[in-house]
Amino acid sequence: MRLVTLDNGTADGQLLVVSADGTRGLTTHIPSLLAAIEHWEMAESTLRDLSMRLGAGEGEPLDHTKLRAPLPRSWQWLDGSAFGTHGELMQIAFNLPPIETDRPLMYQGLSDRFLGPREPAPFPSEADGIDFEGEFGVIVDAVPMGTGPAEAMQHIRLVVQINDWSLRAIAPVEMKTGFGWVQAKPACAMAPFAVTPDELGEAWRDGRVCMDLHVSWNGRPFGHATGAAMDFGFHELVAHAARTRNLVAGTIIGSGTISNSNYAEVGSSCISERRAIEIIAGGNPETPFMSFGDMVRMEGTLPDGNYPFGVIEQQVVQAASAN
Amino acid sequence: MRLVTLDNGTADGQLLVVSADGTRGLTTHIPSLLAAIEHWEMAESTLRDLSMRLGAGEGEPLDHTKLRAPLPRSWQWLDGSAFGTHGELMQIAFNLPPIETDRPLMYQGLSDRFLGPREPAPFPSEADGIDFEGEFGVIVDAVPMGTGPAEAMQHIRLVVQINDWSLRAIAPVEMKTGFGWVQAKPACAMAPFAVTPDELGEAWRDGRVCMDLHVSWNGRPFGHATGAAMDFGFHELVAHAARTRNLVAGTIIGSGTISNSNYAEVGSSCISERRAIEIIAGGNPETPFMSFGDMVRMEGTLPDGNYPFGVIEQQVVQAASAN
Repeated sequence: MRLVTLDNGTADGQLLVVSADGTRGLTTHIPSLLAAIEHWEMAESTLRDLSMRLGAGEGEPLDHTKLRAPLPRSWQWLDGSAFGTHGELMQIAFNLPPIETDRPLMYQGLSDRFLGPREPAPFPSEADGIDFEGEFGVIVDAVPMGTGPAEAMQHIRLVVQINDWSLRAIAPVEMKTGFGWVQAKPACAMAPFAVTPDELGEAWRDGRVCMDLHVSWNGRPFGHATGAAMDFGFHELVAHAARTRNLVAGTIIGSGTISNSNYAEVGSSCISERRAIEIIAGGNPETPFMSFGDMVRMEGTLPDGNYPFGVIEQQVVQAASAN
Repeated sequence: MRLVTLDNGTADGQLLVVSADGTRGLTTHIPSLLAAIEHWEMAESTLRDLSMRLGAGEGEPLDHTKLRAPLPRSWQWLDGSAFGTHGELMQIAFNLPPIETDRPLMYQGLSDRFLGPREPAPFPSEADGIDFEGEFGVIVDAVPMGTGPAEAMQHIRLVVQINDWSLRAIAPVEMKTGFGWVQAKPACAMAPFAVTPDELGEAWRDGRVCMDLHVSWNGRPFGHATGAAMDFGFHELVAHAARTRNLVAGTIIGSGTISNSNYAEVGSSCISERRAIEIIAGGNPETPFMSFGDMVRMEGTLPDGNYPFGVIEQQVVQAASAN
């Protein structure tokens, strides 16, 4: 089952179930994805019924220009960093000491606004080191405090694809304080389709999204690393987050930047990693960060060429209110 | 003007304006404080009119047993750490290196649930090092990215008092990762009254809440440090937060634990600080963290004895779902 949110002028948008090919949609009395996830046990059968009807050919043509993030805002966004290779390369990129921990890494980020899949990404200054970060994420319903990994798996209701925008001139400065990131992590973007785990078939394994994320920058291929290489599965990240808090329905948990140890072969999902690889190879980073006007495109792709989350394709722009 | 939120079975609760003595309230068509802050320019005159009528003796008796946090949930909670003495003592308490920065310290925390002023605080284990943190906070309406401190001051619509619950066995472990806190920072609590800055009179100066926060633990006085000693004013914290993001209406910005350099005289607003002071004095921390059943009480108090935010008084309990 695939879900989208259409711009209807409200903060949460209009929920639709869409056909497998993404061309047709059906609405329901459930107004928004946030409302659906808050009552998932009840909502799911209604939504799956619509999905069946779409499979039988029903539905209205879907206006792709109106697609927002499937969850345009949520009460909580907890982003992990579950790819060990990403951590190792970032230490090199930012000249930071290794993080010595056997726990999942996680921070809480901006959740009041997720940009749409083709919405421009506004930043105040190129000097901040504008970088994309391609990752996968999951959306859970309410998870009680103390829920373990096996039970947490059952709370993973939807899988999404995320671009976690990052400002690299600020990130290491904030990281050194130990407080995590505020200025370095503006609003993320989401690919248009939120899908149920069963929709991914064999690509949803052990709480991991086992497909390549194809990333391109200004039309040039940049990386196609696989989400299968997470050190912790999403169910383990959910359990980690729920250790001392009840997770509110609609909580989004991110994988962190997708990164593989064979990066020479598959490339990267963020610019900082490529810069680290250049430091390893030649002593200096050569690839600059993004400029205003630059485009980034991301799509998680199955072996058969399908991309179940749709496409993120965003242009970097100067924020209107920047001084 | 003083605002409260009454439990009416909804997630956001029922907004009321209350009389200066906190005994009477009036409702309006504006359903919740979140709705009011989202349209503050329009809402304020309606609410101030109710406040006038309350001043003239109107209103229904206020049921204090139904008082929730004035903002029971919000899209964003950004907690600063603006008292330098707190930082210095925490480095001693946790044997951490000094944080070398001239920027405001800030992390994003759990905002989907603020506990009510007398709501029990549930934690999974005493072994996590249960600690209170007394602080003040502000609630802003929508703040555009790039807003400077002077303009940010005009977006501070309400002032609140917060107990930022912290788990000290986890905090330094998470802090060392650079990612900030997730497990170490469960839901905070709020005192019952959110007040407009003008309600504080001379105690609202230079973006600071210039009053003593009286803290007691199991009925014994623990501290009465002043909020005047912030290294940065709230307007500067708001501007810091808005450097690279639009702040959503209802964003709550915290001062961090109130702490004064004359701590030998005024005491502390969290247990960790007292432990650090014991380390300085004798080499070892002597005061334990909280036990299930313990009570903490906090009230920001004016020189005339009034406490405009009301009282936080919470009992620590074992979480029902804890294993």
